Amino acid sequence: MLSVDEARSRILERLRPLGAEIVPLTEAWGRVAAAPLPARLDNPPADLSAMDGYAVRGHDTAAPGRLRLVGTAPAGHPFDGFVGPGECVRLYTGSVMPAGSDSVLIQENAARDGDEVTACESVAPGRHVRRRGQDFSVGDALVPAGRRLGARDVGIAAAGNHAWVAVHRRPRIAVLATGDELALPGEAIPRGGVVNSNTPMLSALIRAGGGVPVLLPPVPDDVSAIAGAVEGLDGIDMLLTLGGASVGDYDLVQQGLARRGLQLDFWKIAMRPGKPLMHGHVGADVPVLGLPGNPVSALVCALLFLLPALQRLSGEPEGDPERERAVLGSPLGANDARADHLRASLTRLPDGQLQATPFPRQDSGMLRRLADSEALVLRAPHAPAAARGEPVEILRLDRYGI
Amino acid sequence: MLSVDEARSRILERLRPLGAEIVPLTEAWGRVAAAPLPARLDNPPADLSAMDGYAVRGHDTAAPGRLRLVGTAPAGHPFDGFVGPGECVRLYTGSVMPAGSDSVLIQENAARDGDEVTACESVAPGRHVRRRGQDFSVGDALVPAGRRLGARDVGIAAAGNHAWVAVHRRPRIAVLATGDELALPGEAIPRGGVVNSNTPMLSALIRAGGGVPVLLPPVPDDVSAIAGAVEGLDGIDMLLTLGGASVGDYDLVQQGLARRGLQLDFWKIAMRPGKPLMHGHVGADVPVLGLPGNPVSALVCALLFLLPALQRLSGEPEGDPERERAVLGSPLGANDARADHLRASLTRLPDGQLQATPFPRQDSGMLRRLADSEALVLRAPHAPAAARGEPVEILRLDRYGI
Repeated sequence: MLSVDEARSRILERLRPLGAEIVPLTEAWGRVAAAPLPARLDNPPADLSAMDGYAVRGHDTAAPGRLRLVGTAPAGHPFDGFVGPGECVRLYTGSVMPAGSDSVLIQENAARDGDEVTACESVAPGRHVRRRGQDFSVGDALVPAGRRLGARDVGIAAAGNHAWVAVHRRPRIAVLATGDELALPGEAIPRGGVVNSNTPMLSALIRAGGGVPVLLPPVPDDVSAIAGAVEGLDGIDMLLTLGGASVGDYDLVQQGLARRGLQLDFWKIAMRPGKPLMHGHVGADVPVLGLPGNPVSALVCALLFLLPALQRLSGEPEGDPERERAVLGSPLGANDARADHLRASLTRLPDGQLQATPFPRQDSGMLRRLADSEALVLRAPHAPAAARGEPVEILRLDRYGI
Repeated sequence: MLSVDEARSRILERLRPLGAEIVPLTEAWGRVAAAPLPARLDNPPADLSAMDGYAVRGHDTAAPGRLRLVGTAPAGHPFDGFVGPGECVRLYTGSVMPAGSDSVLIQENAARDGDEVTACESVAPGRHVRRRGQDFSVGDALVPAGRRLGARDVGIAAAGNHAWVAVHRRPRIAVLATGDELALPGEAIPRGGVVNSNTPMLSALIRAGGGVPVLLPPVPDDVSAIAGAVEGLDGIDMLLTLGGASVGDYDLVQQGLARRGLQLDFWKIAMRPGKPLMHGHVGADVPVLGLPGNPVSALVCALLFLLPALQRLSGEPEGDPERERAVLGSPLGANDARADHLRASLTRLPDGQLQATPFPRQDSGMLRRLADSEALVLRAPHAPAAARGEPVEILRLDRYGI
């Protein structure tokens, strides 16, 4: 059986970032830049005042004396004249520094009487001036390609005078749940039936990863129905199947997909929860990821494999899920040959460390427990027993959207 | 001047969570539950098999012997008969346990020959059975009111048989930038003009906080224009102004809003960057938050005051921004009377601790530096000098959407 890391590498290996589209800047938040955004201007665009006060020639303030006020330059209304020796111009935060001036006497340190201004301090040349281009200059890359744009990136793209941004298209992921026992949420549940919680849950996770879920109608455990459901996958960037991924009598997904030309890569990995995890390609080379039908297993596998795949397709630098460190809140026995992912609660210790305490019962049928978990404690295959207080690696679940 | 915490309390004090609307479950991700979601069924809905194998009476396997196969029960197709002594029923993961049986003999430990099954292990009663209601029972609260729904919450809401979710309405925040110098992104910039980066940046932050930005056209530094821009705020839950919040000659927002009945609460707080921060109410009691026009100051103030306000309006339990611990990567001098928020980079040290290193230059005109920052180092008023390696509190900026 494959290891978790090897399985992830094989899934990511053949995925390529989707192409670009342009969106207005106000729609760019949360999207991934498809190209670096260069500055189209210097910022500040000119030498600007950083304060409210008076534009002066610094040397004029070295000795006490009066300055003659020759103009006013509100922000957005530059003074067109020249500040000569012994002269000053009233200005405000963001005002363009008038020619001839080199520094700002702040208003708190100035006394004005009509057109005469007395400096109560000596101002060093350059004081309170924001130099042209001090933040960035024309041509500087403001946002790198592959960055998922946060509010600050949108702000700096605007400052660089961009109204449009080229972003990678959102990955469209078709979600296909299989099983005779599935009923849609809100509908009457027949005896022996269970609600299909996987389709809405995985669709939400696809959104959290920046993708667009396409909810295929669930299909029964029937090879023809499964084959029929995956006809016409045009425009779909990945097919996600839920349930039926192994090879038991009623695990028919592989057989159904085989009728659509399934090229199987692997279908088992050495992990818990979630051993049956299928990967391959169907139809016109659409990648397919087959997750276990058990919702806890499905979600854990999706965190480990689907989210990185979404990152790759979205154009983000591919990466393993971000691991953090914590100390164990309770002892753990030695692990077997399968990588384990223990649902756990988190506490912040007085010294600032995170403490992760795995729930005593790790039944993969407990969706409630998964929803309450704040982290997964990662246990490598054959990890030795670990005492309370020992360091462990965790994946945090208490993050936006998961 | 007010402290940061006092200012936040006064802003939050009069805000109330917005009312509810219903959305389909597939649109509920990222929304905030307006009421607890109770389970509408037991989960599992019946005693189910946790494995592929045979439903047996555990005692029958205590001694070696053969069992008679009397039926098959795939998931979704319960066996309607009774499992008597010496009998068994073929079943699969998720199958309903047939009457009379009490445990599952897994297929790996069974040898089948036609209608005869030999148990190769002794099965304790209850083994490999998921008990009805073991995950949750009818009436259990699956999702608390005030929870921003992640994928797992959507999953458990589905499992509890909900197709609709009552969520708080999204806060609609009007964004009004003021200043003669402002040009819209992408347009020609007149001499002395700068691009209005605040409106797109704050709009993106409003989205990150779950709100709906309403972008008012920027207005010049003119009292009538400002007063005119804030007519007709029907349906707006908060007005955010950008720039002109203090009382300089060209800081006219207060004067403009006064014409719309501004009830001013405060307009100065003891913090850096961002001393001018206005709070009050206009028109028919619409809360107004006036941020500084400097983009760095505006963003820092928005993190400290706007995001908590969005949480409050959205129905999330109000809270301070989440602080984490780090150790200083470089020494800091003593702080003055204003709370400081130093832009910093983060490194993970070999022992797992986060190290925060403030940038040497903290000019609030440097948007580039803000965009590159991974954290704000929080410095309390009058904080003493701190050496490299000392603990500090930080706000992380490298989170989804900021």
